Amino acid sequence: MRSVGPVRIIGPVLDDELFIPLATYESPLWPSVERGARVTAAAGGIRTVIHDDRMTRSVLFEAPDAETASAAIHEIRTRMADLAAVAEAGSRYTKFLDMHDQVVGNLLFLRLEMHTGDASGHNMVTAGADRVVQWVLDTFPSLQYVSVSGNYCSDKKPTAVNAILGRGKSVIAETLIPEKLCSRFLKTTPHSVAELNTKKNLIGTMIAGGIRTANAHYANILLGFYLATGQDAANIVEGSQGITYATVRDGALYFSCTIPNIIVGTVGAGKNLPFVSENLERLGCTVDRPAGDNARRLAAICGAAILCGELSLLAALTNQGELMEAHTRLERG
Amino acid sequence: MRSVGPVRIIGPVLDDELFIPLATYESPLWPSVERGARVTAAAGGIRTVIHDDRMTRSVLFEAPDAETASAAIHEIRTRMADLAAVAEAGSRYTKFLDMHDQVVGNLLFLRLEMHTGDASGHNMVTAGADRVVQWVLDTFPSLQYVSVSGNYCSDKKPTAVNAILGRGKSVIAETLIPEKLCSRFLKTTPHSVAELNTKKNLIGTMIAGGIRTANAHYANILLGFYLATGQDAANIVEGSQGITYATVRDGALYFSCTIPNIIVGTVGAGKNLPFVSENLERLGCTVDRPAGDNARRLAAICGAAILCGELSLLAALTNQGELMEAHTRLERG
Amino acid sequence: MRSVGPVRIIGPVLDDELFIPLATYESPLWPSVERGARVTAAAGGIRTVIHDDRMTRSVLFEAPDAETASAAIHEIRTRMADLAAVAEAGSRYTKFLDMHDQVVGNLLFLRLEMHTGDASGHNMVTAGADRVVQWVLDTFPSLQYVSVSGNYCSDKKPTAVNAILGRGKSVIAETLIPEKLCSRFLKTTPHSVAELNTKKNLIGTMIAGGIRTANAHYANILLGFYLATGQDAANIVEGSQGITYATVRDGALYFSCTIPNIIVGTVGAGKNLPFVSENLERLGCTVDRPAGDNARRLAAICGAAILCGELSLLAALTNQGELMEAHTRLERG
Amino acid sequence: MRSVGPVRIIGPVLDDELFIPLATYESPLWPSVERGARVTAAAGGIRTVIHDDRMTRSVLFEAPDAETASAAIHEIRTRMADLAAVAEAGSRYTKFLDMHDQVVGNLLFLRLEMHTGDASGHNMVTAGADRVVQWVLDTFPSLQYVSVSGNYCSDKKPTAVNAILGRGKSVIAETLIPEKLCSRFLKTTPHSVAELNTKKNLIGTMIAGGIRTANAHYANILLGFYLATGQDAANIVEGSQGITYATVRDGALYFSCTIPNIIVGTVGAGKNLPFVSENLERLGCTVDRPAGDNARRLAAICGAAILCGELSLLAALTNQGELMEAHTRLERG
Repeated sequence: MRSVGPVRIIGPVLDDELFIPLATYESPLWPSVERGARVTAAAGGIRTVIHDDRMTRSVLFEAPDAETASAAIHEIRTRMADLAAVAEAGSRYTKFLDMHDQVVGNLLFLRLEMHTGDASGHNMVTAGADRVVQWVLDTFPSLQYVSVSGNYCSDKKPTAVNAILGRGKSVIAETLIPEKLCSRFLKTTPHSVAELNTKKNLIGTMIAGGIRTANAHYANILLGFYLATGQDAANIVEGSQGITYATVRDGALYFSCTIPNIIVGTVGAGKNLPFVSENLERLGCTVDRPAGDNARRLAAICGAAILCGELSLLAALTNQGELMEAHTRLERG
Repeated sequence: MRSVGPVRIIGPVLDDELFIPLATYESPLWPSVERGARVTAAAGGIRTVIHDDRMTRSVLFEAPDAETASAAIHEIRTRMADLAAVAEAGSRYTKFLDMHDQVVGNLLFLRLEMHTGDASGHNMVTAGADRVVQWVLDTFPSLQYVSVSGNYCSDKKPTAVNAILGRGKSVIAETLIPEKLCSRFLKTTPHSVAELNTKKNLIGTMIAGGIRTANAHYANILLGFYLATGQDAANIVEGSQGITYATVRDGALYFSCTIPNIIVGTVGAGKNLPFVSENLERLGCTVDRPAGDNARRLAAICGAAILCGELSLLAALTNQGELMEAHTRLERG
Repeated sequence: MRSVGPVRIIGPVLDDELFIPLATYESPLWPSVERGARVTAAAGGIRTVIHDDRMTRSVLFEAPDAETASAAIHEIRTRMADLAAVAEAGSRYTKFLDMHDQVVGNLLFLRLEMHTGDASGHNMVTAGADRVVQWVLDTFPSLQYVSVSGNYCSDKKPTAVNAILGRGKSVIAETLIPEKLCSRFLKTTPHSVAELNTKKNLIGTMIAGGIRTANAHYANILLGFYLATGQDAANIVEGSQGITYATVRDGALYFSCTIPNIIVGTVGAGKNLPFVSENLERLGCTVDRPAGDNARRLAAICGAAILCGELSLLAALTNQGELMEAHTRLERG
Repeated sequence: MRSVGPVRIIGPVLDDELFIPLATYESPLWPSVERGARVTAAAGGIRTVIHDDRMTRSVLFEAPDAETASAAIHEIRTRMADLAAVAEAGSRYTKFLDMHDQVVGNLLFLRLEMHTGDASGHNMVTAGADRVVQWVLDTFPSLQYVSVSGNYCSDKKPTAVNAILGRGKSVIAETLIPEKLCSRFLKTTPHSVAELNTKKNLIGTMIAGGIRTANAHYANILLGFYLATGQDAANIVEGSQGITYATVRDGALYFSCTIPNIIVGTVGAGKNLPFVSENLERLGCTVDRPAGDNARRLAAICGAAILCGELSLLAALTNQGELMEAHTRLERG
């Protein structure tokens, strides 16, 4: 584990220069993120937005037929206050937000969406879902339990639903790099980076049969960040599904990372490990704030780290041979 | 980190009872995998198959027009021996296997596939790709370099190409559990597990817009296994894209996990950490064997671990309330 | 074009035996659907449900930065009544239903959802979207127009969003076929059909990298139905994305087709062609009913036709050689 | 039905100015394609490439276990000449090309790829697959028949496999439009079209959960072309999965449509209808040529028609209000 930075980050819950811890066996990751930190700091920093924040679990039932399944859903939709009360019962931090549904034949899936404060929320939504299951079975005696998780959640799977309906914190990180800084720090041009992004990340991922994803290596940075901050790192599966969008604006490089499914908490399993709590403290995410703000701050920092690493790798790839040369030098060094 | 087992595994490079190390912050994972180990051992073990083994990198060029791009590809296809020699130059362990290509307008993508011995092979294929890039540019002067990685590889992205064309070790793990053992160890029936798999893993994932994936939580086990054995754990993104298929056969539960993209090595970055080399040794993956066999053995063990955890969770989900109860008990315990 | 049937259909706006017109160059389609009609009629008919009904268009803007894009969306969400008034202005039949949004960097997509009465609604939603575009530009001067359609609609593209958020009429058709009728009419067993559906439609489509789809040939029947009833048949792209789910229930075959994106109208372009209006009349879809009911009835009939054809083909496939034999016989006959 | 043009097309089997027939209920399609024809003709025409040509069917078997399934596949791979002989037996035009496979648990899928001359080839590959099924069952007695089509083909389904492994004719159509012509014919600029393509077709489709597709409306043009030339128009499902790539080159608009799955024939079902044979004749696709060349010529023409319609719509969308205004004017006119 090493901390890289300082990364200059501006956002709703932060305006700071921070050293970001990344735990990885792949040591070339550190200098790569660090280079992104340097160029973005020189350019005025990384602006971050938290566009959405929720955690989800989908429950699955079986009806005698499709008509009963559909009718049950239409009735549940009229009783959202009841559903919310059931989902929130017995938890101070759980706030029910919304429900979406699917019917397949006689099967019915309810996707429950909740705020879970500063916890990543896996257990809170499962507990809430458990209560909802019982309420549904009590309310609709013709329905039968199938599963408290119906994969329409979707937890740690590459799907489209998470970014469409929301799961985790939806973070957008962006920066504007003047041509001169591109050249000095990244040995490339705004035009080269923007073109490469279209050809590799947008088109290349699409022809590979990618689903809702267009980036070079969010997964690497996300893994390092999750491990260093005590997160359930298996969530890099949906977390790494994000879109890099770059374009040339008045000669400068507009560079953005849209990462709709960052799942992080500042409390819960893994957070009491000494190095984790130390890291969270250094990142300013253990301060007394309104519920959820520490976790949102952490997500924004994560988004900024991703932008640093993504920008640096794309820049490297615009120059033939640079990537391999760097790996060789760093891993032998 | 904890080792769970013993897991009884039968396969081309192993016939053993092994304790499998899993590193995770999510402690309920251990007893879950352990339960799967117990029931499969009682049922005679887990059979594993390595159906394929290769590592990939895609290079990306630009031609003046589509005709030139298409013509270049057709010519390269006639010179595969040259291409192989270039890709393998300077590496004892790299064996060129095959190439696939895509044209999009004037862009051309070559997906290079190689054996990389006992290494996971990220760097070996990048080095090979670097040499191929230069050869292509020398051979076709009208082509221009775009990127040594064009996302058609696809490294750590959720796509369809990896399972269709192959990336990593393709492992199938399967077992046959008599009804009596299902009931004793898993508190469920073969019919319940098979039905749940269809409704949750196959249909539930599909309606979520999942891509080439149908399982409950391969990502959790894969993460724990990769971290414990020194792998680049960001590869759980494609690694967790696999398919659980279960059916009732003569009253017993036929249960299989098909995991086409396990990316593991027994040499390379991360393998010299003391706990890693100890784990690899205990798993019998540091023995003097033909090149690649240690890594394939490791992949087969990984597949068996996934089966244990997948079976155990699905069984738990068939019983209303069991999952949450277990989490509460284990995390507080 | 030929009418096949009678198909026995039960549903919210119908309880009839109908002859269903199908226009196709592929003549084996007719006897195939007809066989499905016979066996389902003998089994008591096909029950249909209309689970949802809406038409969509997504508009696309550009903001100076992500923060402005996100803020605009959050403000629009508080002004849904204004948005509805704008979307509905100047159209008697347009009813605004809901909006969903996406931010990617500084780009913002608004997906507008509306009821469009008995029209399929392509033009009504475009007209509504046009008005919304102007209102957004007037309300948020820092936003710039990009496109009245941003592909997040998604019109005639294979995506996940349509079935998750809704587009067109969401139809579920189902039937229960006793074993004896399976054998007599379809030369197969409930078990064989259910197993084949899992192996071919669920698993086979998934390994092909299919997106939100699991069926044998909805596209064929949909095309024939759309052409015969004057629909924009290019909508078979999203319309054919549906899921066949079959299981054995007390020895009988439960067989269902879930088709979330049927896009049909009984008024509008193509409906005045003589053969079209005649077909719509024969199907009982030109009767004086509440707005939208004729189109929903037509969608339910379409769903039943799909079920007939799907069931018949799956049954044929369970018997080695039957499909080819039928094609040879019918096309030469 | 109306013929639009003349379209100026340059390609391997053509260098012509042609009027292209399109059958549709959506009359605004004609002037849209026509505008594309005018501007591309003024710019020197549309260049087309046929990058690949094959038809596919996947057969599905069941083995006692995964090891047997995998072993059978590895043996079949060593007997490709036998397989080819079996697949081609009894057909003058069928040429076996390649096989790809998948194992899922104990299930095994073989995807058979063949040239089918000037026929679209659905029946030829099914007949070939039927023979292969019998040969496999004879050769591997432990395997059982499941289906002559396992959805890994994939026929008329939106998947990733078709473009990755090939199905139908892979066509790339491209053109270079000087800025002045963009302005005169299309009322837009190269920059506007290229930017819109990135934002709408690439990013917009991706966030919708699209699979291997990035275009505005290939489906519309494809439907009209397939119906007018007697094709099985349900193949627009995979046919419309293609990628528009546009960029500014020295001030001009480089515009390309990559359409990997065009499935057309000049002989077979539907081709004897008088208007069809007349259309095929006018397009110069009934001439005495080497087997397959007439169908490839037809596919190239289809690709050019798609480019015309795609370019025209994208250009229209760059101007706020133009699309709706055109629809209103044309449909009332």
